[in-house]
Amino acid sequence: MTQRLHTLGVAVIGTGKMGADHVRRIQEVTSGARVTAVVDVDAERAKSVAARVDGCTVHTDPAAAMAAADVDAVIVASPGPAHEAALLAAFEHDLPVLCEKPLTPDAASSPGPAHEAALLAAFEHDLPVLCEKPLTPDAASALRVLEAEQKLGRRRVQVGFMRRYDAEYMKLKSLLETGQLGRPLMLHNRHRNVASPPGWTSEMLINDSVTHEMDVTRWLLGHEITAVTVLTPTPSDNAPDGIRDPQFVVFETDGGAIVDVEIYVNCGFGYQVQAEVVCERGTARVGDGHALVTNAAGRWGGIIAQDYIERFADAYDREVQAWVDATRRGEVTGPSAWDGYAVAAVCEAGVRALEEGSRVAVELVDKPPLYAN
Amino acid sequence: MTQRLHTLGVAVIGTGKMGADHVRRIQEVTSGARVTAVVDVDAERAKSVAARVDGCTVHTDPAAAMAAADVDAVIVASPGPAHEAALLAAFEHDLPVLCEKPLTPDAASSPGPAHEAALLAAFEHDLPVLCEKPLTPDAASALRVLEAEQKLGRRRVQVGFMRRYDAEYMKLKSLLETGQLGRPLMLHNRHRNVASPPGWTSEMLINDSVTHEMDVTRWLLGHEITAVTVLTPTPSDNAPDGIRDPQFVVFETDGGAIVDVEIYVNCGFGYQVQAEVVCERGTARVGDGHALVTNAAGRWGGIIAQDYIERFADAYDREVQAWVDATRRGEVTGPSAWDGYAVAAVCEAGVRALEEGSRVAVELVDKPPLYAN
Amino acid sequence: MTQRLHTLGVAVIGTGKMGADHVRRIQEVTSGARVTAVVDVDAERAKSVAARVDGCTVHTDPAAAMAAADVDAVIVASPGPAHEAALLAAFEHDLPVLCEKPLTPDAASSPGPAHEAALLAAFEHDLPVLCEKPLTPDAASALRVLEAEQKLGRRRVQVGFMRRYDAEYMKLKSLLETGQLGRPLMLHNRHRNVASPPGWTSEMLINDSVTHEMDVTRWLLGHEITAVTVLTPTPSDNAPDGIRDPQFVVFETDGGAIVDVEIYVNCGFGYQVQAEVVCERGTARVGDGHALVTNAAGRWGGIIAQDYIERFADAYDREVQAWVDATRRGEVTGPSAWDGYAVAAVCEAGVRALEEGSRVAVELVDKPPLYAN
Amino acid sequence: MTQRLHTLGVAVIGTGKMGADHVRRIQEVTSGARVTAVVDVDAERAKSVAARVDGCTVHTDPAAAMAAADVDAVIVASPGPAHEAALLAAFEHDLPVLCEKPLTPDAASSPGPAHEAALLAAFEHDLPVLCEKPLTPDAASALRVLEAEQKLGRRRVQVGFMRRYDAEYMKLKSLLETGQLGRPLMLHNRHRNVASPPGWTSEMLINDSVTHEMDVTRWLLGHEITAVTVLTPTPSDNAPDGIRDPQFVVFETDGGAIVDVEIYVNCGFGYQVQAEVVCERGTARVGDGHALVTNAAGRWGGIIAQDYIERFADAYDREVQAWVDATRRGEVTGPSAWDGYAVAAVCEAGVRALEEGSRVAVELVDKPPLYAN
Repeated sequence: MTQRLHTLGVAVIGTGKMGADHVRRIQEVTSGARVTAVVDVDAERAKSVAARVDGCTVHTDPAAAMAAADVDAVIVASPGPAHEAALLAAFEHDLPVLCEKPLTPDAASSPGPAHEAALLAAFEHDLPVLCEKPLTPDAASALRVLEAEQKLGRRRVQVGFMRRYDAEYMKLKSLLETGQLGRPLMLHNRHRNVASPPGWTSEMLINDSVTHEMDVTRWLLGHEITAVTVLTPTPSDNAPDGIRDPQFVVFETDGGAIVDVEIYVNCGFGYQVQAEVVCERGTARVGDGHALVTNAAGRWGGIIAQDYIERFADAYDREVQAWVDATRRGEVTGPSAWDGYAVAAVCEAGVRALEEGSRVAVELVDKPPLYAN
Repeated sequence: MTQRLHTLGVAVIGTGKMGADHVRRIQEVTSGARVTAVVDVDAERAKSVAARVDGCTVHTDPAAAMAAADVDAVIVASPGPAHEAALLAAFEHDLPVLCEKPLTPDAASSPGPAHEAALLAAFEHDLPVLCEKPLTPDAASALRVLEAEQKLGRRRVQVGFMRRYDAEYMKLKSLLETGQLGRPLMLHNRHRNVASPPGWTSEMLINDSVTHEMDVTRWLLGHEITAVTVLTPTPSDNAPDGIRDPQFVVFETDGGAIVDVEIYVNCGFGYQVQAEVVCERGTARVGDGHALVTNAAGRWGGIIAQDYIERFADAYDREVQAWVDATRRGEVTGPSAWDGYAVAAVCEAGVRALEEGSRVAVELVDKPPLYAN
Repeated sequence: MTQRLHTLGVAVIGTGKMGADHVRRIQEVTSGARVTAVVDVDAERAKSVAARVDGCTVHTDPAAAMAAADVDAVIVASPGPAHEAALLAAFEHDLPVLCEKPLTPDAASSPGPAHEAALLAAFEHDLPVLCEKPLTPDAASALRVLEAEQKLGRRRVQVGFMRRYDAEYMKLKSLLETGQLGRPLMLHNRHRNVASPPGWTSEMLINDSVTHEMDVTRWLLGHEITAVTVLTPTPSDNAPDGIRDPQFVVFETDGGAIVDVEIYVNCGFGYQVQAEVVCERGTARVGDGHALVTNAAGRWGGIIAQDYIERFADAYDREVQAWVDATRRGEVTGPSAWDGYAVAAVCEAGVRALEEGSRVAVELVDKPPLYAN
Repeated sequence: MTQRLHTLGVAVIGTGKMGADHVRRIQEVTSGARVTAVVDVDAERAKSVAARVDGCTVHTDPAAAMAAADVDAVIVASPGPAHEAALLAAFEHDLPVLCEKPLTPDAASSPGPAHEAALLAAFEHDLPVLCEKPLTPDAASALRVLEAEQKLGRRRVQVGFMRRYDAEYMKLKSLLETGQLGRPLMLHNRHRNVASPPGWTSEMLINDSVTHEMDVTRWLLGHEITAVTVLTPTPSDNAPDGIRDPQFVVFETDGGAIVDVEIYVNCGFGYQVQAEVVCERGTARVGDGHALVTNAAGRWGGIIAQDYIERFADAYDREVQAWVDATRRGEVTGPSAWDGYAVAAVCEAGVRALEEGSRVAVELVDKPPLYAN
């Protein structure tokens, strides 16, 4: 029997760089969905994005958007560099706020309740949500989201850890699942950015960059992270004053694996994300990115991607398509609120490990049955 | 001002392997299009494909499908291995036939007019067409299509040379266009398949496989091919009796370049498509396919793709999306009927070169102004 | 003016696997030297090695060999797996003993004074010595050798850290010395063996394997190692009972660099030694070993070396030739007794770090002026 | 029983760049040999080379050198760019001349009888000879050498095709000999030089560069070359006026293989020698030269060697050591006069193919039993 699948109406909260890109993606790349509402505290910006989308309404209040008849699902994205004043004004009116990283020039003014409020509002309308990482900026608020979702009794949230949708990481995961290399023992990661944005801090290397490796570790190995150590070499001359960049981060896991992450956000030469899993009987590596090879001017080799959009464009496309497909089938798959919570908890331990210069244990609540599998 | 873009209604002619895959692609991957009609001489097969698509009509006559109100554009795909009897029956009724390669167990029974008829019917309805390669099975019929399109006075046809939409080939083309490596002087190609399908002939290595390198040569270098030489080593023991496989094909171009193609369709070990352009100041190579690297059991390396779907799935997705996007904008882009004709002419020279064991010149008509770009 | 260079007469102490290989090397590969004496407590073994060398005398006492007129220089090599009983017998007679790794089935019975005694005897005769690593089994005895050499007032000893003579490591060192990549910040090392020999212990991963990375770290970066941390994942099922293999070792250096070493001596799949230096403006990596690339049976890639002899044969040849050349010129170059001492001190810290599960600082005496370079 | 091996006394004919390098190699790298005589028509140059070698005599007449008591074997090398006048003077006295490539600024003044005369003189004294390629400049003179050697009744000559001693080519040959990839069907070669020396001609691409691939083809595949075709793209702007560079050369073999060679001697970017053998069940490739990999300035990759000395230094060392070792054992191994003759015959066909723009068959005499094996 033919199953008629409805075209999904999506509200995109946040029309900054990432949000606008998701609007474009839904309209031009994704099959089976269209954008029916956009939300931004900056109404003009929202309008200009909506103007390119037929039949798209504009809101400054996420709750209003979510109440609209043609909204079936929500993407919580984030604005470009939001001015702190606008954020604080929004908080006063208790508005859910669209969280771009970096949120503000310094971590102290971070708009904690933003994602949390948007998610709770979505739960009220029982809408499926694709939430850009991080789920929330700290473990306590992530825990509140977890609890709210458990009250609903079913998963509503997918967190935007898009590396799980990268073709190379997917192949690596598949290979590990065959078991042919044996148990994973170690995981070596390299994560290099050309330069950090203005206002970046030493803590953000953990909170904004290494979060990806936290998720990758948990997903690839199927382990929880139990302890974090952060070692800092003499900072690179490329690093802005006061930023400890690069850092060398070591995770221990409850499956007995050791994971290391080189994070270097001002390497200058390119954007590189590489991972090598060392298993009992072999190793497997992704991220060399050697598609086009040239010989010229005394050198062989190729070009290094310069940013995450170039490197992970396909992963974002696949992530959103998979979310649309699952949502149309009435399912929620992909990284869960539990994944978002666990990463938030590892981040807190990581920042303490950086500050204290020592190994810090990660504390997690018991995993609720909703997230078992 | 907002431009409301209509969702494109597509008729897919042929519901064999490739046709059914295009139906799936349009429905599940492509943004902005849906399948509104399918056509097959095998009505049962067409029905079973249509059953999975909401609102899709079923036809055995392409002309009837093209006359339907919700058909805006046509994909000429091809059935699985069509039985010769069914094809001949179709010809009797003068029906356009869906051309799968290989058409039949031997080249002599090839249904020449199939693609041609479908294209001419589409022209009558002034519909944009995405036609799987080859445009038509010989230069004479391709020329008739060219002439019909010129009478319309505007391009209606895009030919399915999907390598132009492969990410690696696109990067190679971009690099050449920068001019930083200088003029291209030589192009080395490797084209290897695991095994040839039943009924494959020595000529099909030229007509079905090397056609891709003919298009790649013309597109990458911007040259027309002026002569073909085919050299045949002692056939591999893997090759079916009587098939001269591998072959080594050499093109000369009107831009003074020399192009070589290793075609080996029974290599047994994998599907590999590689190209290296040698320019005055450097070379550039694609197709190594080295994304996931393992160390295990005394060997480093990775897995080789096993078929063209695995290797070029993304290229097909991009090709169809680009065609849908252009069509919705009222444009026709991509490989043209001229490209289809030129490749057909090179094929004819190539088959003669294979038979005669000598260099054969390629004869082309003057390029009509419609295809000047 | 022509300088007539004498052919160097070399005494090789120890005719086990490594010693016999050095005899072969001097006779068949090295220019400008010949073996004039071999020494082994096992006189029969020494005789059988000497029988293939014209004019070579046989000794059981190194001092006697060193006193011979045609002995100009000494290689302190080591026997194959020496039986503990033979070693203890040798100690009773206070004979210098030829130290093969592993010395004995367990670390407790390690013949500490072996290398030390041979070196001190060589100093008496003022002979240049090429001493296989380790210089001595602990920092205290290494210090006594340092002191004895200082009394002579000039360098007599080169320690066999042969990676400094590997073509790839040499290129890496040269590149770092150009300064074009900026200051080194991190060094990632992989060190994998197919299987550990019988009697191997967890400590030997530090003392016998990671010693190479200790020297590489000090030589490549020009830093001393100031602290060691050893992390141990759940052991591989490949590891013999009770052996913590793999280990993940982290060094801190007095130049502010962080160095990590994956040591996995029972990986089963091959012998791999890889190093990547991360500098301020770029990284450089050696050890991929990708000389011969095959496509076959669904895989691309190549063969991994299976042991250090296959991987480092050229490095040994170059090491010995460089030592012979320097000796004939009246010079002593290459890794010094100070290098041997410093590595011994890092080993002691490493073994404690392994036992205690925590970071251990490395203590070094002040560097004597003799070793200032 | 111990076999006492005599240290081989070698006469080096020619003290130009290659000859002087062989003198250095014998003295400083090779085990078991020393240079006892050097010969050059330029007595001053010979003296200055001999001055660095203890006990080395100086000659202007090869025959005199060969008659010396301490000369056991001969290397026929070649001078640096020999002045034509000096060469002609030497011919007048019927002296064997030392053949450097390029011999003279233009091919017309090439001193044909040089190598031939030196070889025949060596035969008179029944001395083993290592002769730099080419054996002689044409097939007719090579044939006279063949005949003279047959009269002696045993092999005396090894020709300097040093690629057979390159580690990568040796691995490739070994792999082919296992038979695991099946029969070789095709061989793809790339041969690129930074720039051609002054006086280079289109023919020299065949006679001086592609000679290596001729030998590689014959040795790797175990086939004789039966026909040559040369295709020439529009010359590169890098090529000196009048030089057809690059060229694309195709060989057919008596084993039914097709071999292609890209020769590009003014590529500007580096020295690259690559080979891929396509067999029935797989392919194998050498020459990528990817030992040291860097990430810097937006690019990954490595440095390309800039000349043959950098790329093949180890091969020359191994070649000479193997020749010395064989000679001391009373054997002659390595590429024979037959190999030199066969390559000379292919060269002649190749130059005709270049001039005539068509396929030219190679004619060989029957292979004498002396060279059967």
